[in-house]
Amino acid sequence: MHLILTWCFLAGSLIKVVYLSSNNNNEADDKGKKSSNDCVGIPNGSSDYPVLCGRLHFAKFETSKINDCLEFISSKQLHQCADWHHESSSHDKNIIKATGGGAYKFADLFKEKLGVSLDKVDEMDCLVAGSNFLLKTVHPEAFTYVDGREEYVQIDHNDLYPYLLVNIGSGVSMIKVDGDGKFERVSGTSVGGGTFWGLGKLLTKCKSFDELLELSQKGNNRVIDMLVGDIYGGVDCPKIGLSSTAIASSFGKAISENKELEDYRPEDISRSLLRLISNNIGQISYLNALRFGLNRIFFGGFFIRGHAYTMDTISVAVHFWSKGQAKAMFLRHEGFLGALGAFTSYENHVAIKHRGFCTAAVPPAPIPVLRYQTLDPFHTY
Amino acid sequence: MHLILTWCFLAGSLIKVVYLSSNNNNEADDKGKKSSNDCVGIPNGSSDYPVLCGRLHFAKFETSKINDCLEFISSKQLHQCADWHHESSSHDKNIIKATGGGAYKFADLFKEKLGVSLDKVDEMDCLVAGSNFLLKTVHPEAFTYVDGREEYVQIDHNDLYPYLLVNIGSGVSMIKVDGDGKFERVSGTSVGGGTFWGLGKLLTKCKSFDELLELSQKGNNRVIDMLVGDIYGGVDCPKIGLSSTAIASSFGKAISENKELEDYRPEDISRSLLRLISNNIGQISYLNALRFGLNRIFFGGFFIRGHAYTMDTISVAVHFWSKGQAKAMFLRHEGFLGALGAFTSYENHVAIKHRGFCTAAVPPAPIPVLRYQTLDPFHTY
Repeated sequence: MHLILTWCFLAGSLIKVVYLSSNNNNEADDKGKKSSNDCVGIPNGSSDYPVLCGRLHFAKFETSKINDCLEFISSKQLHQCADWHHESSSHDKNIIKATGGGAYKFADLFKEKLGVSLDKVDEMDCLVAGSNFLLKTVHPEAFTYVDGREEYVQIDHNDLYPYLLVNIGSGVSMIKVDGDGKFERVSGTSVGGGTFWGLGKLLTKCKSFDELLELSQKGNNRVIDMLVGDIYGGVDCPKIGLSSTAIASSFGKAISENKELEDYRPEDISRSLLRLISNNIGQISYLNALRFGLNRIFFGGFFIRGHAYTMDTISVAVHFWSKGQAKAMFLRHEGFLGALGAFTSYENHVAIKHRGFCTAAVPPAPIPVLRYQTLDPFHTY
Repeated sequence: MHLILTWCFLAGSLIKVVYLSSNNNNEADDKGKKSSNDCVGIPNGSSDYPVLCGRLHFAKFETSKINDCLEFISSKQLHQCADWHHESSSHDKNIIKATGGGAYKFADLFKEKLGVSLDKVDEMDCLVAGSNFLLKTVHPEAFTYVDGREEYVQIDHNDLYPYLLVNIGSGVSMIKVDGDGKFERVSGTSVGGGTFWGLGKLLTKCKSFDELLELSQKGNNRVIDMLVGDIYGGVDCPKIGLSSTAIASSFGKAISENKELEDYRPEDISRSLLRLISNNIGQISYLNALRFGLNRIFFGGFFIRGHAYTMDTISVAVHFWSKGQAKAMFLRHEGFLGALGAFTSYENHVAIKHRGFCTAAVPPAPIPVLRYQTLDPFHTY
């Protein structure tokens, strides 16, 4: 495999690595998928712009297992791959573009173990650049989730801005995006993926985030949540617009029952927790979209990871709080916004070198490999 | 003790009973406090309006211990006390004004055990009426909580409306109040007192809400919460306006540590949980106040119960999210809004009987007894 570029997003609880290779050979873990066109180029084929050919690979690691990540990068020599650009010096070859808090925290470790410098790129810059890149380049990328079905949304590039980007990682950032590089982090919440996994781990003894998510599918939140019907004797409360099945108090039923933690099924706990967090994020997101008059809310970040129940709950929350006026939208490459955004920082650099900043070249499109790997973008290739 | 009136607020997890007695004798649990003026009357002393004389008593019970509540009412004969009104029939004497979901759920139980009918009054009506009553009648009632100190706020009766009332019970209701009886429940969240106590009970094995609150005072949330500094290697993140000590992810540190529930101190868990919930309520409340252009936010409900750290966290959250533009305000009788509001429904009834609806009589003022019992309004008298 011939490596071209590597980007890292070192977040609070997960590290995401994206790298571009020019290798067309199918490896065992590529699951037989082929890319008929591996060029990362410009639609009109202008030869004045750099054209990158290759396949994008996605990998993730828990931040606590940083050594696994370093070993992975070392074994694949991802830290010595910046040779796509003929003018790159040997110094450039020892640089990996990196974003997220870990880019600061682990800089010394990368230097010591791999002899590589992390070229830090601002996290919010990267999230927004990654999101803009995906929304403008990849089709289909954005979708709504209604009644258990994904419905892809056509995004008019001329009518993309403004929108609210909600990135759900360990915590949640809410960013008003007005254009390429034009954005403001307007809000956020500490109740995010780290809360789900942190509280879930303490409550269920699950060994992984994915295991906890899996459990939630088999759970029934009504066992633990206090519903409106539990308070009102099984009837709706139409005057305040709440049905008997609406959650009045998350985990509220645990108050009145003579049960201990061990008496509850982990499945039910996981489901209640997921609903609490998804509902809450959906509500705060909608309130912020309303505040800034934003009609579109895109949800990204590794918390979602294509999980049906999470998307369904966020969708229902946005629908409920907006009284049907707004719809949540999701991104297929939700977990890699930051790492993909770091990619565009390379491109800017090149574009400026060649003929100044040029939005046509940032980001390049299409990236055919995304078409082949997006259905399962979470495996390590 | 001569009983005059009883009102109940039967909420999701707590039952609040307020009753008025004409007894001036100091009972043992009155802690030697005397009321020099026990008349519930009208400031100008007009004899055309009914004047109630007495002392208000406050009691609370966990909803799961409904039988204790029934026994208490029975032992004090609170269900046979509607004799303040000369025209009241024997039928009227067997009625207790009640609000909250439990007024529906436990109606049959009250009838069966006490032979008393619960005259159901709408919960939101009562919360608003109770809040308006306190804000217009009792001085001092509203206060801000800054740097560990209560600062009482002068409320101009002519400039009271509109305001946002945030009632934090098991769940949270957010009500835009525009006047007497004029209001709309504009929002809410299921992450409330029931979540704190429900999750707290499962995580710490505490036996009571108060015990859990006590624990939080001795805790350190940084042990479990993932701070911005934990992600960014101890430094602030000024570009997004977050200091290194801001919580990036509630309970997020539990992800990366090889610890189980038993390895964390209940004190620290309680503190993290309290911060999560208080922060979240503060944020959603502010967003709703902003949405409707409301300058004042009053926080009530039994979740707060005068607890310094809760009020401090809510205050800090409102200050943070409003960038110093808004201040959280609290009510001394926060836990009894619903029950006190049910009181005004009696008064309306009387005022209408005597000379039509008259706001001067609803609510009557002052209630001197409140001045003597508000410092500790949570005990059962």
